[in-house]
Amino acid sequence: MPGKTIFVLGGARSGKSAFAERLVEQSGLDAVYIATGQAYDDEMRERIAVHKERRGLVWATVEEPLDLTGALQAHAGEGRAVLVDCLTLWLTNLMMVERDIAAETARLASMIPELPGTVLFVSNEVGLGIVPDNAIAREFRDHAGRLNQAVAAAADEVYFIAAGLPLKMKG
Amino acid sequence: MPGKTIFVLGGARSGKSAFAERLVEQSGLDAVYIATGQAYDDEMRERIAVHKERRGLVWATVEEPLDLTGALQAHAGEGRAVLVDCLTLWLTNLMMVERDIAAETARLASMIPELPGTVLFVSNEVGLGIVPDNAIAREFRDHAGRLNQAVAAAADEVYFIAAGLPLKMKG
Amino acid sequence: MPGKTIFVLGGARSGKSAFAERLVEQSGLDAVYIATGQAYDDEMRERIAVHKERRGLVWATVEEPLDLTGALQAHAGEGRAVLVDCLTLWLTNLMMVERDIAAETARLASMIPELPGTVLFVSNEVGLGIVPDNAIAREFRDHAGRLNQAVAAAADEVYFIAAGLPLKMKG
Repeated sequence: MPGKTIFVLGGARSGKSAFAERLVEQSGLDAVYIATGQAYDDEMRERIAVHKERRGLVWATVEEPLDLTGALQAHAGEGRAVLVDCLTLWLTNLMMVERDIAAETARLASMIPELPGTVLFVSNEVGLGIVPDNAIAREFRDHAGRLNQAVAAAADEVYFIAAGLPLKMKG
Repeated sequence: MPGKTIFVLGGARSGKSAFAERLVEQSGLDAVYIATGQAYDDEMRERIAVHKERRGLVWATVEEPLDLTGALQAHAGEGRAVLVDCLTLWLTNLMMVERDIAAETARLASMIPELPGTVLFVSNEVGLGIVPDNAIAREFRDHAGRLNQAVAAAADEVYFIAAGLPLKMKG
Repeated sequence: MPGKTIFVLGGARSGKSAFAERLVEQSGLDAVYIATGQAYDDEMRERIAVHKERRGLVWATVEEPLDLTGALQAHAGEGRAVLVDCLTLWLTNLMMVERDIAAETARLASMIPELPGTVLFVSNEVGLGIVPDNAIAREFRDHAGRLNQAVAAAADEVYFIAAGLPLKMKG
């Protein structure tokens, strides 16, 4: 049975993660959380802690900064909802170790239609401000935009979140 | 009689203030403008002046950089439309005097359902660009996102404005 | 016969150009591409090259960094779809040679209802991030917002693009 992919896109502090978590909780499926964020510094550590606290205790948590496709293959399954939070942190991690982003993007996008169960991806929209001064930020912005486009094209449902409220863009 | 709260969210120069002003003018209610902006420098002074010019003369204007909940208590009322422009400038002012932003956000959100008459809040969405370099800008972005979520959750209608056009997100 | 104007607004790497190009290709009209971008540096040159490659060979291409209204007068016509990509690069070019942006914006907006055939404008939304540090970036952001509002007001259809997906805002 083919699975279902939901893509949740939004800005910083837009409520996108909470929205995705509610979708999982309402599904009644077994919940698995794939965290792509690494606890680099205190600020990040605090955010991850707040994030963990908001989720209920019934979630299984997997931390996977780089091998997202491997983690999805290992954890997606019938009767499960796997929440990946978030794609832009995964992209940051990939760029730090100089992976081929276009290849990673293509690999993720091509596996989405094959994944069993329900899979939700959370990602940041980062392209709606002024062009960044430094070249790495511009490169990141380009990669993130292409990654978001690829996942949105492969997903069954897409939501844009602002101020905690969803706009359905697809599905 | 319970009042009605309208939240207008948008980017810089998106036409969000003009949209909110049109809603007030079409309401036929007595219009009160609560300006949270202080005329810090020439650029800001000019913006406030342009802003004043666009509004008609029938508006009463209140300048209140910090005590927004007090101003709302004093000015909201049956038969009135109070326009607060804007929440992100209020947030800036609060941060400059080191107020407890979470507490201020909660206080504003909790009073919204009790306000009489029509109240409109204008705010900037600031979370859709690249992560800012400096920590204060990141902190501002986090506070603004949470404030926008709280007001959107309490509001009866929410609009996202881009290029002068509204997308209705709630109500 | 009055023409039709379509305005496509979106972030960096949002898929806005590809969306506009698909609209042109689906129209079956003769396609003309007005590129406002100048090949300033290698990064820009590469983007323009990728852009050219994605379009089919049946497109006529015009490069016009400054005199956009002249190019529209010369190339818009019955049975044609003219795609202008993009307005924010045109704005950048105008600012570099210190043109009167308000006047250029008004001139473009006022000619839109008179243009024959189909004309599509692509533009960046740049106002949804943190306030930029430097004054020129703030000025650019203000001009871009006002330009987008003016074109959106004059257009028959307006789309906001995120992650390659359109939200119809008008028409």
